Amino acid sequence: MKLLNIDGMIVTNEANINYIVGVKAEGTFLLTDKDNVFITDARYIEEVNNTITIDDEINVMDVANMPENDYLTFFANCNRVGIEENSITYSKYQKYIRLFRIKEAVETNNLIEKQRMLKDNEEINNIKKACEITDNCFSHLLKFIKTGMTEKQIALEIYKFFMENGADGLAFDTIVTSGENTSKPHAMPTDRTIKNGDAIVIDFGAKYKGYSSDMTRTIFVGNVENEIKELYNFILACQKRATSKIKDNADGKDIAESLEKEFNCRHYSLMHALGHGVGLDVHEMPILSYRTSYILKENMVVTNEPGIYIPGKVGIRIEDTILVKKLESETLTKSDKNLIII
Amino acid sequence: MKLLNIDGMIVTNEANINYIVGVKAEGTFLLTDKDNVFITDARYIEEVNNTITIDDEINVMDVANMPENDYLTFFANCNRVGIEENSITYSKYQKYIRLFRIKEAVETNNLIEKQRMLKDNEEINNIKKACEITDNCFSHLLKFIKTGMTEKQIALEIYKFFMENGADGLAFDTIVTSGENTSKPHAMPTDRTIKNGDAIVIDFGAKYKGYSSDMTRTIFVGNVENEIKELYNFILACQKRATSKIKDNADGKDIAESLEKEFNCRHYSLMHALGHGVGLDVHEMPILSYRTSYILKENMVVTNEPGIYIPGKVGIRIEDTILVKKLESETLTKSDKNLIII
Repeated sequence: MKLLNIDGMIVTNEANINYIVGVKAEGTFLLTDKDNVFITDARYIEEVNNTITIDDEINVMDVANMPENDYLTFFANCNRVGIEENSITYSKYQKYIRLFRIKEAVETNNLIEKQRMLKDNEEINNIKKACEITDNCFSHLLKFIKTGMTEKQIALEIYKFFMENGADGLAFDTIVTSGENTSKPHAMPTDRTIKNGDAIVIDFGAKYKGYSSDMTRTIFVGNVENEIKELYNFILACQKRATSKIKDNADGKDIAESLEKEFNCRHYSLMHALGHGVGLDVHEMPILSYRTSYILKENMVVTNEPGIYIPGKVGIRIEDTILVKKLESETLTKSDKNLIII
Repeated sequence: MKLLNIDGMIVTNEANINYIVGVKAEGTFLLTDKDNVFITDARYIEEVNNTITIDDEINVMDVANMPENDYLTFFANCNRVGIEENSITYSKYQKYIRLFRIKEAVETNNLIEKQRMLKDNEEINNIKKACEITDNCFSHLLKFIKTGMTEKQIALEIYKFFMENGADGLAFDTIVTSGENTSKPHAMPTDRTIKNGDAIVIDFGAKYKGYSSDMTRTIFVGNVENEIKELYNFILACQKRATSKIKDNADGKDIAESLEKEFNCRHYSLMHALGHGVGLDVHEMPILSYRTSYILKENMVVTNEPGIYIPGKVGIRIEDTILVKKLESETLTKSDKNLIII
């Protein structure tokens, strides 16, 4: 806050609030040098009060009972108040400026998101546990998946496994695509049944104590054409080379660029970012992309997920969740990446 | 658009885009009198192109390949361009104003959300189907739930039932609270096990072809104290009276106010809104609350969900999804509301 020369801040990003308050609850968090207030509504107040401690020094207010005067006084001594321009809606921005009589609103350029990039031990352990549940689920799926099943049945089994094995839930909507559907990187599971000769892309992750894992494996049913096998092994080699470059002080842009060059040699191209940060949100800062520079730092957790998609034919993506370390990264999702035929 | 005197619009609300394009995909929809463009990214383009037809007159663009000049020309002949102030973030608002060289940005005050309030036959049928799956799931739960099970296990069974019985998925994160947890209206399922004498609040809904259902039932295990039984029957009577008032031209505010008066007579108060619209979003316009006036119209679909919460003791909520009709509303969730002891 000193760097931005602000003396107060309005926090509206839900994951940032979760990070500060320790509860996933709708509301707005206000802070100044003197005071911290979390304005929420009646649905969450009991839970929030059960979670925060006296040391947190957070006052919890019900938005329905908030005295008009509290709005007027809260930022009264602040000259510059930070806002989260990437989460606050235009209407809320205007409302808050008016309600709090804010003299000068200052964009904070992902101030808290940047802090969240660097994980402490407890956060890393939660992500490790989420990755472990995901790995165990993948082992289970290799025995579970049979021809005749639908993509939806596989997605349901993943949810079931997570819930029965200690996860809070899904980190994101599970992607299970098969056959010709695999070329759509973000399609939802359908009633298409698994057939011999199919590729299956499974992109899934668990939540554990609020923290996410994110892993993709592409497996094959019965048999695989030589051409596809060769493509798979090419992507796998690219993914491994990218992983070996993920370490403290590396630039995500350089890593994505060199992978893009490898893809270009074969007339393919990265269709989406190479990776992203993982934490309370499954997609958070930094981004690993040839469009933007991000210097990786020890204790960041990022994905590495190159994929090639040939419409109407096949899509292959291989993704791990990776802990950035000083000399060598640590891959937290440990499931086998060699070509698997079930 | 004529009423607002705008000649172009930038649509950023995800459900509004789903309503117009027919696909759930991230992106921005632009329209003028002459042109419709959906700017999305590579993850969604194949699916969007498979869904829209030539009659939709929608150009689909990949944000990564969008020529600079397209931004400059799109709204070039527009004087006033509508924005969705309740969904666009402050940073996107600024970016779009700059990129498109917008002369005057106009708040559109939920223009599309208001259209979405009135459902056509296809939409109503989808919601009816979502409600039917939810009712069938409740019948199943009455046989399924046993003491010793956890709240999480019940929530998992709901998801499983939905997925195995034709739903696309959950309309929202299922709420299953039991015993003392029932007093938290919005708590997530925990590992608490169901005990004899517990109340269980189950608030759940399915998605069917993108449309939602929303129902809450409070049931009891083994036995129920007379005091709680009496409270349940009081809430049920209030809920039924409110339902009888839900019809064309009724004001949601009046309905909520008269229920609040009934609650006040017993020294209780409505802790959250009495109800909300249901459709592509599970929470959409209108709101039934004593804070705001909304005139109900034929073919709106709304919930009616009064609840009383006594911290540390018990919470009871009874909720239906209701189709507003000319003379009498039609309750679409048909599960038994009489006090059930399992």
